[in-house]
Amino acid sequence: MTTMPNSFSFRLLARDGAARSGEMTTAHGVVRTPAFMPVGTQAAIKGVHHADVRAAGADILLANTYHLMLRPSAERIAALGGLHQFMHWPHPILTDSGGFQVMSLAPLRKISEAAVTFRSHLDGAMVELSPERAMQVQILLGSDIAMQLDECVQLPAERSAIERAMQLSLRWAERSKRGFEGAAAGRALFGIVQGGDDQRLREESVRALVGIGFDGYAIGGLAVGEAQSVMLDIVTGTAAALPVEQPRYLMGVGTPADILEAVARGIDMFDCVLPTRNGRHGLAFTRFGPINIKNAHHADDPRPLDPEGRCPAARDFSRAYLHHLFRSGEALGGTLLSLVNLYYYQDLMAGARAAIVNGRFADYLAEARAQWAAKSDRTF
Amino acid sequence: MTTMPNSFSFRLLARDGAARSGEMTTAHGVVRTPAFMPVGTQAAIKGVHHADVRAAGADILLANTYHLMLRPSAERIAALGGLHQFMHWPHPILTDSGGFQVMSLAPLRKISEAAVTFRSHLDGAMVELSPERAMQVQILLGSDIAMQLDECVQLPAERSAIERAMQLSLRWAERSKRGFEGAAAGRALFGIVQGGDDQRLREESVRALVGIGFDGYAIGGLAVGEAQSVMLDIVTGTAAALPVEQPRYLMGVGTPADILEAVARGIDMFDCVLPTRNGRHGLAFTRFGPINIKNAHHADDPRPLDPEGRCPAARDFSRAYLHHLFRSGEALGGTLLSLVNLYYYQDLMAGARAAIVNGRFADYLAEARAQWAAKSDRTF
Repeated sequence: MTTMPNSFSFRLLARDGAARSGEMTTAHGVVRTPAFMPVGTQAAIKGVHHADVRAAGADILLANTYHLMLRPSAERIAALGGLHQFMHWPHPILTDSGGFQVMSLAPLRKISEAAVTFRSHLDGAMVELSPERAMQVQILLGSDIAMQLDECVQLPAERSAIERAMQLSLRWAERSKRGFEGAAAGRALFGIVQGGDDQRLREESVRALVGIGFDGYAIGGLAVGEAQSVMLDIVTGTAAALPVEQPRYLMGVGTPADILEAVARGIDMFDCVLPTRNGRHGLAFTRFGPINIKNAHHADDPRPLDPEGRCPAARDFSRAYLHHLFRSGEALGGTLLSLVNLYYYQDLMAGARAAIVNGRFADYLAEARAQWAAKSDRTF
Repeated sequence: MTTMPNSFSFRLLARDGAARSGEMTTAHGVVRTPAFMPVGTQAAIKGVHHADVRAAGADILLANTYHLMLRPSAERIAALGGLHQFMHWPHPILTDSGGFQVMSLAPLRKISEAAVTFRSHLDGAMVELSPERAMQVQILLGSDIAMQLDECVQLPAERSAIERAMQLSLRWAERSKRGFEGAAAGRALFGIVQGGDDQRLREESVRALVGIGFDGYAIGGLAVGEAQSVMLDIVTGTAAALPVEQPRYLMGVGTPADILEAVARGIDMFDCVLPTRNGRHGLAFTRFGPINIKNAHHADDPRPLDPEGRCPAARDFSRAYLHHLFRSGEALGGTLLSLVNLYYYQDLMAGARAAIVNGRFADYLAEARAQWAAKSDRTF
């Protein structure tokens, strides 16, 4: 084990327009930004071994508080040494607050000033998640980066509903910060900017959160139904309002294009299930465009997905073989394509970091846009 | 790539009672015997990456002709460079003839002197599998070791039915041998001893097969419903009748206990789906007895399955975490337990080989029996 630093820090290494590259130091190691965090919902990345996720280049994983608090429970994970030891991932971990998945997954949820109460989708038990409990759970898990409890509103929504949720999220931000005071040294807590698609509400949320003071700031409540242009406008304005010296995290985003566009606007961190979900469904991200490996025209194709690629699965296996695995229902197919996609995402971020450091991020983004526009699988 | 030897050979290194240890040289490398062959039914080991199967210690895989001839087809695999290249396994491969799975999986099968005709379970097409076609398919696949087409009878059965199938299998053995004449240099063909639970029929089958002459001999038609004692009696008698200088393969066997008992009786090769099938179902083979990881008492157990084991999955992850993966429906659980089991089987074979070379196989078998009897999971 490496020695754990006793404080969380973020250092900007380079800026290129609004894009930034930096280094976040956590209790379990350094995260190079812009960073993509693979999602380990239930303390596992679906279908993929952690060691392979690490080899792909991931500095940090995201795990879902909602799932883990219900099963196997935060108390059990704490008794087993915390989430890092439980899942054998000795590197940085960010946990969400559980709030977003309560809203999207749990039946019978009820929001009050005090807490959100919901019925567990596993056993039907009524569970209460308050800002204090969300902090307690994340402290028990031992997250390097915890998230405040917030309320996220599906878009489109009335301004009054967006404002009410934003204001509630601010009060929960204060309670979250107090609740996090017992966390171990070096653990970070991020506030979450809400305000829907309303730029003035977003700026009000930023001002209030910065007043409370967090180790980093997330932009929540986007990629929830709005157009990409709306999302990017909000990201532009919100990032511009956030403190320069602290990390910014765009939650639940997204496609490769979403991510690079958000990097261009000053975002440092991302998470998304797309690499593994698409991989399980036979969809591969490659430098040559997206590929739906289940399409019949791959059945006789001896070419690997990317003979020059860094991912062994993209080099070692023919498209014909990968196609066969999907046609035959072999789980190995989903595993291999998930790996291809995780490498693709990490390579995309590594390329972005290098481009920013070299002052050529605009070119990198333009090249990526052109590549995505020009080359796509003929029947993706 | 290593240079391919242009002949198949088998060399006995040691004998200890009836048990033997040797080395089989094939076109794609050496197989240490007694050998356990993991099963890659559809050109993939279920849920496990080939590289991990190799790391577990497998010298050779088995692939199923029945499945591969139907999907993606032998002709397609041949056009893609053969099965080794198709699945990216440059090591030895044995293929069965397809006959056994026609009998067990295909609807509407009809056996005639010429061939077995069956309806594909995939698309309903009528398919004919003759001894000549079974050889053609295995030559197209590029198997290092091909099996004759035979007819296997479920036990218990009337002696007349067993004898009829045994005699048909002998005529198919002759046609298989002729059909295999076009195979590439260094490829081996094994005959299959039939005769059910009748020792005299078994011996008659051996004499006739040896008269035809094969590179090795399999014992088929066992582990198909009979008691272990019946199986082992037949193995004892049949192995004693087989040529000493050629490899013997007990098809589809079996449990760790079945395998060691058969090694004691002179068997060199085994295949079975148990390590991966049990792994997917949460059942782990360990040095400390079998473990059903889904049982509730593992939920809080911080101990790995085997802290001193050679398998990373058995060392790195707690029983509590593996239990959680199964409870949560994470496929990674099945992958990790399949690996644990594949390592267990390979370690069992490595131990058997070392014991035979050191003249202490009887002790090794007695120790294993005692361990299996004494230590088992309290609620397996």
